This record gives sequence, structure tokens and C-alpha cells, in this order.
Amino acid sequence: MEHFSDRLAASVRARSSVVCVGLDPVLERMPPALVDEYRPQAAELGDDAAVAACFERFCRDVIAAVAGVAACVKPQAAFFEQYGAAGWRALAAVIACAHEHDLPVILDVKRGDIASTGAAYGRAAFGGAPGFTAPVAGLAADAVTASPYLGEDSLEPLVEHCATGRGVFILTRTSNPGAGLLQEVEVGGRPLYLRVADLVARLGAEHVGEHGYSDVGAVAGATSPGSLRLVREALPHAFLLVPGYGAQGAGADALAGIAAGDAAGYVVNASRSVIYAWQDGGGDHQRAAAAAAESMRSDLRDGL
Amino acid sequence: MEHFSDRLAASVRARSSVVCVGLDPVLERMPPALVDEYRPQAAELGDDAAVAACFERFCRDVIAAVAGVAACVKPQAAFFEQYGAAGWRALAAVIACAHEHDLPVILDVKRGDIASTGAAYGRAAFGGAPGFTAPVAGLAADAVTASPYLGEDSLEPLVEHCATGRGVFILTRTSNPGAGLLQEVEVGGRPLYLRVADLVARLGAEHVGEHGYSDVGAVAGATSPGSLRLVREALPHAFLLVPGYGAQGAGADALAGIAAGDAAGYVVNASRSVIYAWQDGGGDHQRAAAAAAESMRSDLRDGL
Repeated sequence: MEHFSDRLAASVRARSSVVCVGLDPVLERMPPALVDEYRPQAAELGDDAAVAACFERFCRDVIAAVAGVAACVKPQAAFFEQYGAAGWRALAAVIACAHEHDLPVILDVKRGDIASTGAAYGRAAFGGAPGFTAPVAGLAADAVTASPYLGEDSLEPLVEHCATGRGVFILTRTSNPGAGLLQEVEVGGRPLYLRVADLVARLGAEHVGEHGYSDVGAVAGATSPGSLRLVREALPHAFLLVPGYGAQGAGADALAGIAAGDAAGYVVNASRSVIYAWQDGGGDHQRAAAAAAESMRSDLRDGL
Repeated sequence: MEHFSDRLAASVRARSSVVCVGLDPVLERMPPALVDEYRPQAAELGDDAAVAACFERFCRDVIAAVAGVAACVKPQAAFFEQYGAAGWRALAAVIACAHEHDLPVILDVKRGDIASTGAAYGRAAFGGAPGFTAPVAGLAADAVTASPYLGEDSLEPLVEHCATGRGVFILTRTSNPGAGLLQEVEVGGRPLYLRVADLVARLGAEHVGEHGYSDVGAVAGATSPGSLRLVREALPHAFLLVPGYGAQGAGADALAGIAAGDAAGYVVNASRSVIYAWQDGGGDHQRAAAAAAESMRSDLRDGL
């Protein structure tokens, strides 16, 4: 079974890109042509199914447009969950579409729960729930994001899936304004998020691929570059998933010094600045997304 | 708009019960009669849909059985998410069924994400996502559980829904063995979970109902009774959602001294020890669940 970290490293190298395109579909930012196409379905299918179909089409368009320049994609489950079962089905279809384009999928769910519940979240993301006749496929993501608040026993049920080629990115220092309240609390002279980084290192030690990266990585925001560097120091062998670039305000300089190994060792997420680029520049949403992703790739080539 | 906390308080008083029945359906523990009934559907509908239908039926049975003695129910989303869109649809049906029995529903999702993503999680749980013609209903839960690791700006989008009659239970000190790693870290002479409790108090101050309880409550485990009492001291006006009773090992004595106000101010969750009581005692799963819930109600009457 190929390691997740090796698939991601291979994709970074093949595309010479650390770009992770976040798929955060919201109705108010769908291109008018798609709205015109899917709005009529609401009467027949219901609003939930019509919007979910529109989101699926939009994400398929974006994936096709960025497939050559993005290392991976990161669908955010919340935007699909809003539309219930139809949204969930669209999410599964989007993940399958990314795989058709040979793009690893990091499912952004920030789950974290214990024992049998944690195991169920793992099977929801990666498949394997028991059926009457055969196991169920689940969302078939390549990796998930996870929240560490409940401790090690909430992360282990997800990390177990690394043995079958999956990955887990555990939140350390996130990119939002309120991140510091808990994450920056000082514990024995160090911020709490480094205690989490120690846990990431411990959980990931047994899951290292051919490229030297662990399948257990960390989420660390570019909006706090000093924290990002400390997370890298604590985790020299982890893939970092770095939000905060683009719409959230951080630039390429925030990444200085965090490259590690033969495939940068990080991917940088941008969602709105890529997928809604058509709103700034006008024109076709696919061409705008491709151009924005390419511009981001060029901006972030230093680690490669 | 009636406050969530008032609906929950009214239910506690009407049933003279602090029992919260956790709905954690797993295939390997479904009653044989239900398995026989739903297994044949797998060939036609697929394993995901057949299992989801079985779960829905099982949860409906449990809800009908405990409706007179439980104050509320707590479906755990993970067990439904494993079965994809079909599971999500079953979850929505289970929530609607609880409402038919006038039972408040605490949706256990432990979500936590920022800004637009947090808002999307709120709409997934409570409804209100924009549609082409009308807003989408979502899961229509009465309250959700939330994880505080990302800080205040990740909780605000959920707490906003308190203004329209919903509730939020924020994790403080959880009931699992690994809870201490982050939650017990000492900050200024106090454990981290009390810093979270302070945040719960702050977020909940503007959302207090007629019974004097806030719509923003806290999850605090009975497996650590000392912590539970400290959380209560920090949150005299919050409803506490207390896991850890029953299968996880804690007894009624762990709750000594935490009652507050005219409706106990807490609900105690038990999942497996109620819904799978038929496996211990044999016989009909509805009668066994009703008897287990009634026994738990009797055991926990001290706060009422």
C-alpha cells in the first residue's frame, strides 16, 4: 500500500507545485451561468438537491481547471453538509472527480472524537463501515484534518488508517484571529500548539513513507509565520498543511525556511482567491481559477 | 422564540428526568429481528441505504420506547456519516422522529471551524442554508456540541443560533482517558478546561432563558467528578451535558453537588447501556431500552 505522504510528495514534484486548492462552494458566489442552469432544478428536485448539483458541477469545473497546477485539493465538508444528504452525495462525487484527475484529496472536517465514534469518523472519510453484504466505500478521501482537543485517544482511530495509505493533518496553530486563546497558552515555557506538535510527531513516527515524510501531518497557519517555523522545527518530517495564504492575508514570505525534504514538505491552501477568481477578474470561472492557481504556483516555487 | 434552555428545562421537569439517551447505532449490535428485516434490502438499495434504513428504524424504536422517561436524545453524527448520504438522511429522519415525541435533540458533532465555515456547520445543524428558491431545512437539531480548539471566533457562528432558539454545548473536560493531555494543562494556576469554561460563560451571558439557564452549555464528563464540580462552579447558569455515566464507568455519586436551578441544570448521557440493554437482559429491544432508561432516571433523581 503506497503511503499517503508518498502520493502527496509525488504530486508536488510532478506538478512542481505546493498549491492546495480549497473547495468551499457557497451559493452566493456561484457563476451566473451555473445558477441559470441549476436554478430550474429546484422546483423538481428541491433546493437542497439543486444547489448540491450546482456545487458539484462548479467543483468539477475547478478541479479540471487546476488539475495541472495544483498538488492537491481540499474540499471543506461544512459547505456540503449544509445541503444534507444531497450535499454529502455531491461531496463524494467531487472527491471521485479529483481522483480521476490524479489529485490527492484532503477532506477538511476537523473531526475529533473518541474510541468507537472516532473510528466511525475514520470510516466516514476513508470507507470500511460494515454493510450487510460488503463494506461501504465512504467518502474515499486520501487524508482528513483532525482537531486534537480530546487528546491522543481521539486521534488514534484516524491515524490507524495510515496503515492503509491514508493521511491525517492535525490542527496545531490555526490561521484565525482567535487561535491564540487556547493554542498559545504557555505550557512549561512553550505554547500549547507545540505540545500538540509533539503528539503529531509521536503518532506519525511509525508512518513514514519512501520520501521521508510522515503520513501524520500538521495544520499550521501562514498568518503566524513564527509559529509556523516552530511547528516545522518540532516536525522536521511532517507534511504541513498551511492555510492563511491569499484571501486570509499571508504571502509567500511567511513560508521562508519551512521547506523540508525532496518535495517541500508542505502544501499551501487557498480557497476563495482561486475558486472565485472570476469575480475579481471577470470572465470564465475555469480560466480564472487556472490562472489564479498558476500565479500562486509561481509565487510559491521557492521550496521546490 | 422560546429559548433552547427553556425547552430543555421544561422537558427535564415534565419527565422528572435528567436522562439523555445517546443514539449511537452500530450494525454489529442491531437486534437480529431488524437485521433479518433490513438485510434483504442491501441487494436492491445497496449496503449503505439498507444499513441506514435499519439504523433509522432502530433509533425510532428507541425514541418511542424512552420518550416518557428521557429528557432529550443525542444522536452521534459519526455513526450515520459512515453510511454517506443515506446515513445523513436517516439522521435527519431520527431527529424529526424525536421532535414528534417532543424530545429536544442535541446533535453530537463536536464541530469547530472559523468564519464562513463555522457558519456553514451551524446551518447544517440548524437549517437556513440559502437555496435557489427558499432556505434549506438542514438537520433541524435543537442544539449541537462544539469543540473549542480554534477559539472564540469558531464558536460564535454556532452561538449566533441561540437567538433563534438553538443551543450549543462546548467541550470543556471530556470523559475519555486521554482528555487530560490538553484539557488539564495548567494556565495561571487553573486547568485549561476552565479557561474554556470562562469562554462558555462569556458567550452564553446574552442567551439566558426564563428558567435562568443559558443556551450555551458545557460538556463535562462524569468520569472526572472533581473537574465536573469545577466546571459547575465556573458556570452556575449553564446546562451541563454530562457523558461518562453507565458504560463508561461513572455512577450517580459523580454528580453530587452539581444541580443548579429549578431543572437540575444538567443532563446525563448514556448511549450503549440504554440502547443495547437488550443484549444484556435479552428480550425485546424496546422494552429493554425503556427499562434501562427508567432505571437510570431513578438512579439520577437527586437533582430534581
